[in-house]
Amino acid sequence: SSRYATQGPCNTSKPSMLDFVNKAKWDAWKSLGSVSQEEARQQYVDLISSLVGTEAPAVAAQPTGSTKGFQTLLVSTEDNITTIRLNRPEKKNAITVEMYNELIEALDLAGKDDSVITVITGSGDYYCSGNDLNNFTKIPEGGVEKLAKESGELLRRYVKVYIDFPKPLIGVINGPAVGVSVTLLGLFDVVYATEKATFHTPFSQLGQSPEGCSSYLFPKIMGAAKASEMLLFNKKLTAAQACEVGLVTEVFPESSFQSEVWTRLKAYAKLPRNSLALSKQLIRVVEKEKLHAVNDAEVERLVERWLSDECMQAIMSFFQAKSKL
Amino acid sequence: SSRYATQGPCNTSKPSMLDFVNKAKWDAWKSLGSVSQEEARQQYVDLISSLVGTEAPAVAAQPTGSTKGFQTLLVSTEDNITTIRLNRPEKKNAITVEMYNELIEALDLAGKDDSVITVITGSGDYYCSGNDLNNFTKIPEGGVEKLAKESGELLRRYVKVYIDFPKPLIGVINGPAVGVSVTLLGLFDVVYATEKATFHTPFSQLGQSPEGCSSYLFPKIMGAAKASEMLLFNKKLTAAQACEVGLVTEVFPESSFQSEVWTRLKAYAKLPRNSLALSKQLIRVVEKEKLHAVNDAEVERLVERWLSDECMQAIMSFFQAKSKL
Amino acid sequence: SSRYATQGPCNTSKPSMLDFVNKAKWDAWKSLGSVSQEEARQQYVDLISSLVGTEAPAVAAQPTGSTKGFQTLLVSTEDNITTIRLNRPEKKNAITVEMYNELIEALDLAGKDDSVITVITGSGDYYCSGNDLNNFTKIPEGGVEKLAKESGELLRRYVKVYIDFPKPLIGVINGPAVGVSVTLLGLFDVVYATEKATFHTPFSQLGQSPEGCSSYLFPKIMGAAKASEMLLFNKKLTAAQACEVGLVTEVFPESSFQSEVWTRLKAYAKLPRNSLALSKQLIRVVEKEKLHAVNDAEVERLVERWLSDECMQAIMSFFQAKSKL
Repeated sequence: SSRYATQGPCNTSKPSMLDFVNKAKWDAWKSLGSVSQEEARQQYVDLISSLVGTEAPAVAAQPTGSTKGFQTLLVSTEDNITTIRLNRPEKKNAITVEMYNELIEALDLAGKDDSVITVITGSGDYYCSGNDLNNFTKIPEGGVEKLAKESGELLRRYVKVYIDFPKPLIGVINGPAVGVSVTLLGLFDVVYATEKATFHTPFSQLGQSPEGCSSYLFPKIMGAAKASEMLLFNKKLTAAQACEVGLVTEVFPESSFQSEVWTRLKAYAKLPRNSLALSKQLIRVVEKEKLHAVNDAEVERLVERWLSDECMQAIMSFFQAKSKL
Repeated sequence: SSRYATQGPCNTSKPSMLDFVNKAKWDAWKSLGSVSQEEARQQYVDLISSLVGTEAPAVAAQPTGSTKGFQTLLVSTEDNITTIRLNRPEKKNAITVEMYNELIEALDLAGKDDSVITVITGSGDYYCSGNDLNNFTKIPEGGVEKLAKESGELLRRYVKVYIDFPKPLIGVINGPAVGVSVTLLGLFDVVYATEKATFHTPFSQLGQSPEGCSSYLFPKIMGAAKASEMLLFNKKLTAAQACEVGLVTEVFPESSFQSEVWTRLKAYAKLPRNSLALSKQLIRVVEKEKLHAVNDAEVERLVERWLSDECMQAIMSFFQAKSKL
Repeated sequence: SSRYATQGPCNTSKPSMLDFVNKAKWDAWKSLGSVSQEEARQQYVDLISSLVGTEAPAVAAQPTGSTKGFQTLLVSTEDNITTIRLNRPEKKNAITVEMYNELIEALDLAGKDDSVITVITGSGDYYCSGNDLNNFTKIPEGGVEKLAKESGELLRRYVKVYIDFPKPLIGVINGPAVGVSVTLLGLFDVVYATEKATFHTPFSQLGQSPEGCSSYLFPKIMGAAKASEMLLFNKKLTAAQACEVGLVTEVFPESSFQSEVWTRLKAYAKLPRNSLALSKQLIRVVEKEKLHAVNDAEVERLVERWLSDECMQAIMSFFQAKSKL
């Protein structure tokens, strides 16, 4: 049956990664395994969670702190630096719909405030484990097509704010990074990483496709031969490897990571703000039109993917491979 | 006389690299050396053969095997992988006109078959020694201009099929690669090489110019400073150097090359086919229009080169340098 | 008061980096420090000189040699190589207005002469220390706006000649390189450096912005994460680091630098001239339109910068930080 899942489409009508909670669809899939539907669903969720770094769904995240009214972020401005900290450490900073919206708002504010540089980092051991799968479990009234369209539009707006960000944006990568949190690094100006960090974009494993302008920027940064191994074939990079290919600016020992990086950032934030902002914009402007077009194309393709049989089957195939271990 | 050959045009009417079998033109060149015309011609052919990896001309290649009716290739599909193997090991897999046409056809079929990935590799010790010089020894009725134009059109169509290839294309570089077999690597998605492989594009040495979209892709992959040393100044790269600059994805010890690489490829071929194909197309589409324009410009320049005095003289100069050893 | 200088604009009318010799403007700044105006001016000039590699102003440079009527360059053609040597070693080869004009003329001539390759290098210990600050001390009748506009136009024409250069251009980097002498390296075809060389673009430190097409080419060569650390945050690269990111083709031990490099260059210069020139043009043509647009945008931004309060304040802030040591 695992051969079935990897080799051909099943004949249910429009199964989708997005509607795996839809009972009707699961009847078709139930027959593939020996587990009960509820067991299957739970195992599936566990698998996805382990892949994308989230834990069991349904329990609302309890942010350990918040500023400026954000629920999923800690945002503060000090020494001319606005720091946006992903703050769902118990979920490995997986990005919920709420966090996407809050990040868009926080970045919008940071772009306009009087800070000189903006920093994104994570709370806890992870930098960010990518999309929170719970985003895909609440099917709205319009069905999975509506959910896919809305998710795509949210992603498009999220990436757009990185493309248009008007001052230096610095990633402080405190641990493993997965999915969209990796692909977006091509739109940062500087990326400092702890030696513990890893960089993983397992898109095809889940039947999906790259976003965050990585389909354009990764080949530009590291050449197609290295980019495709990441974006097509799920290669996970160590921090040192990510630095070698130019995705990361510099790697630091875990023991001195925070102190070394923040010493630098504080020095950067004393530099002339307009000189920095205008220089960054000069670098970005020549690519901006193309980046917006790439973002649109990537989102369009991803929405198709989310609604495809293959995407559902890819996830089922992984689930079944795991259930047999 | 060797000084003469490197420093100025001779005054024969339109001598050309392409018509070195044309007796009339050789009268002019004969005077440059002490060897007889027939000796000169043989030495020239030997030299060129050694440079581009071919051996004595005129004897038709005996393919050691063939599938699907190909004479110069072994093509097979297994485990969702279509493998195209250059199969003239006794000629170091030099590409004849026939092989160009067969490669175009084999790639066209591989793009449409139900394989998930396509692999190109070589039989024997070489990956590919580039153009087979015999391509230039059969002057058609229309003369060298016609030959140059036809050769250019063949090259243009050959590169085009790489630009448009719709699924992941992986190079398994089993030994030295020369000329167009190197320049085309920028259009592959992943390139795995044995430590024995080398990468050499001696265009200017032969009075020619780069193709395969390398004039655009090599600077994009490795920066102009490294690309120009290869494309203008004939620097031969080791496998490790090619990996460092991003032309090669990863290098393997010769002893474990085939087993390590094919283990990976078989794993890749189990990934969701549409996800892979659509992701690869997403990466390619943003550059496709430019790549076609670059291909056209490169071919146009190369046709001019083939018909130039300088190209003929460059080859003669090498020949004379060699004849004096 | 140093806090004041870094955190907010002063309220004098249009102070500028360009008019620091204008007494009226200095009255406003004089109150910031405890030094007298004349002391301040001298310390300022000393600081700038130390930053950009020049020495005390006002004394005209004494070229140690000249050819073809150049005052600031040594230009010669031998073995098919035209060599342009920056020749103000006592000023660390800082580029005066006169040297900019002579470089434009020398490159124009080298592009048209019958040499096969053109080389730029420096006399003495430095390759080039960037702009000579004296360029900014002679305010013309039209005031600082006119000086800024003219300086911008000179820079635009200077970079343009690199973009349009029609044959291989090779940098022989004999020592530290600063500012515009670094940013222009992206427009060279090959860059050989001694291990002693360093590469420094301290634009934001002085309230300025990048030029020489580096805002486009540096991210293309090394990825944004490495490029921004140089162009925004003033990171100085060693020769080995510059080679790793692809800005430099190869690094040589100081002891054998000149002999190894010139052996290679002489070999290159024996290659077919048209093949080299046409291949180089093939590589450049696909980017040429964009490079000219980038040059224009960079110059426009830099002219704004030169006239900005912030640029003046950045320099004053450095001056004051230094005066307190």
